[in-house]
Amino acid sequence: MNAAGPRCVKYGATRDHVLGLRAVTGDGRELVTGGRTSKYATAYDLTRLLVGSEGTLALITEATLRLVPRPERIATLRVCYASNATACAAVQRVMQQPVVPCALEFMDRRSIDTLAEYGGAEGLPSGTQAVLMVEADGATDDVPRQIAALEVALRGEGLIEIQSGFAKADITRLWTARKSLSMAVKQIAPLKINEDVVVPVARLANLVNAIDALGAYHRVPVVSFGHAGNGNLHVNLMVNPADAEEMQRAHACHDALIEAVLGLGGSLSGEHGIGSEKRRYVARELDTPTLAMMREVKRLFDPQGRLNPGKKLPD
Amino acid sequence: MNAAGPRCVKYGATRDHVLGLRAVTGDGRELVTGGRTSKYATAYDLTRLLVGSEGTLALITEATLRLVPRPERIATLRVCYASNATACAAVQRVMQQPVVPCALEFMDRRSIDTLAEYGGAEGLPSGTQAVLMVEADGATDDVPRQIAALEVALRGEGLIEIQSGFAKADITRLWTARKSLSMAVKQIAPLKINEDVVVPVARLANLVNAIDALGAYHRVPVVSFGHAGNGNLHVNLMVNPADAEEMQRAHACHDALIEAVLGLGGSLSGEHGIGSEKRRYVARELDTPTLAMMREVKRLFDPQGRLNPGKKLPD
Repeated sequence: MNAAGPRCVKYGATRDHVLGLRAVTGDGRELVTGGRTSKYATAYDLTRLLVGSEGTLALITEATLRLVPRPERIATLRVCYASNATACAAVQRVMQQPVVPCALEFMDRRSIDTLAEYGGAEGLPSGTQAVLMVEADGATDDVPRQIAALEVALRGEGLIEIQSGFAKADITRLWTARKSLSMAVKQIAPLKINEDVVVPVARLANLVNAIDALGAYHRVPVVSFGHAGNGNLHVNLMVNPADAEEMQRAHACHDALIEAVLGLGGSLSGEHGIGSEKRRYVARELDTPTLAMMREVKRLFDPQGRLNPGKKLPD
Repeated sequence: MNAAGPRCVKYGATRDHVLGLRAVTGDGRELVTGGRTSKYATAYDLTRLLVGSEGTLALITEATLRLVPRPERIATLRVCYASNATACAAVQRVMQQPVVPCALEFMDRRSIDTLAEYGGAEGLPSGTQAVLMVEADGATDDVPRQIAALEVALRGEGLIEIQSGFAKADITRLWTARKSLSMAVKQIAPLKINEDVVVPVARLANLVNAIDALGAYHRVPVVSFGHAGNGNLHVNLMVNPADAEEMQRAHACHDALIEAVLGLGGSLSGEHGIGSEKRRYVARELDTPTLAMMREVKRLFDPQGRLNPGKKLPD
């Protein structure tokens, strides 16, 4: 699935760490792809073709992974801004300077309100409309200088507070709160229409603006949070499936969101993949020849369509 | 071609920096692959399939690249060892600790002798049988600590000297010498049979041992140097094509080298690709179903076999 997460901004996604695979195609051929070495230029890269194919091309039975050194130390900042726009501008400044954070997470106002009920928003100054969680990792002696450089980039219009020097227990609590968001938003409404859109990080502010405008126009509560350093946000449209009129507005809002993302040079999915839910939008993003080639690749690896049918590719 | 080089040990090869492509298949279909974002999970990864396909699948007309920050500072060490084995053991120690060098180059005795004629081996202590060039880069304040950690890893049995504190002009001279090796070896004999083999870095010492033994057994001068941090060596069998008996010994040596590399879990090519020269060995490395799948992928992208015919895949 090419899964990723908060650390991806520095360390890359799953695909970047897979050197080789054993895998069985839909018609039972066993492939051995890639190498066991950190550099490889012999075969076609079937390894990375299979990673992220969501089980539709082959069943992976063995993977050889590249490892990275465990960092000696991690330091965390919680940074509060007066608006989404000023928080997004800070994200862009961070990604334009040389110190790459190992996490750069964004939470909008509704995310913060949701967290507050879980004790995850303690001590947030008043006026906070957006929060960034920023982390740096590396050798113990390097981290303070990294954090100092990140603080310089994070300062700017709309900054309310940079909080640092968290104890380990506090950091665990911050991450537990952040990770609980995905479930916690359900207190807003019984159903979430969950998106995983991604845009070039220079256009994150445009995306967040568009989300706000669309939520207001269609009168749908939208909660956005996620991996801002990659321009990858989880946008949640909160709805009551029993309310047909609301569902109609939500679907219109959802549709307009996808259009906005594609208009910004973005993509449907940064890390969750397509599955069955997002299939109907794939043909909006991919042009006809590219989608046709994907279907031919699918037929090559799985001629009878046995593997994970009804996923990834549109009907 | 998925080209790489000395920096690959820290920064990865070309494939790791290509986010998306425009490309035209052999039958004239224009594909738009990948995304314009640093994270992407929508389509099958045709991007990385095309990178490294050596022009056999599609003609690339546009590429979107991921950039990395330019390091503030680079520092260089020249490290001399009493034997290939002790130099290789040092390479393994370096790659087992957390500071990743931005270059970790190996040169054997014949490489040093060749360099000496170009003024690239000045001041090497007597008894030197192998040299490592080691570099660290990053923020100015971090580099000294990185260099200190690398020096700890480089110390051990067989170490003769670690030279540091080079001036910028000296470093340019060291690299010019290192990069001239590929041509300079031709002073040994008129023809080089040039390999680009790669093994897991933990088996580099076994590879270098095997090269020495094979060169001695087949009486062929062999010059080895290259990207030791990736286990990727350029092994050059130096021959006179007018000497039929020598050429026969060289081909036997070459054959045995490939067997040794594959026996060590390695691959034919770390960075040069297969081209036409290495095609005859591809079926030794890849198993039948995987090679058959590569041919089917080729047919899919280039049904008439128009693109770079006679390359990459064996007949």
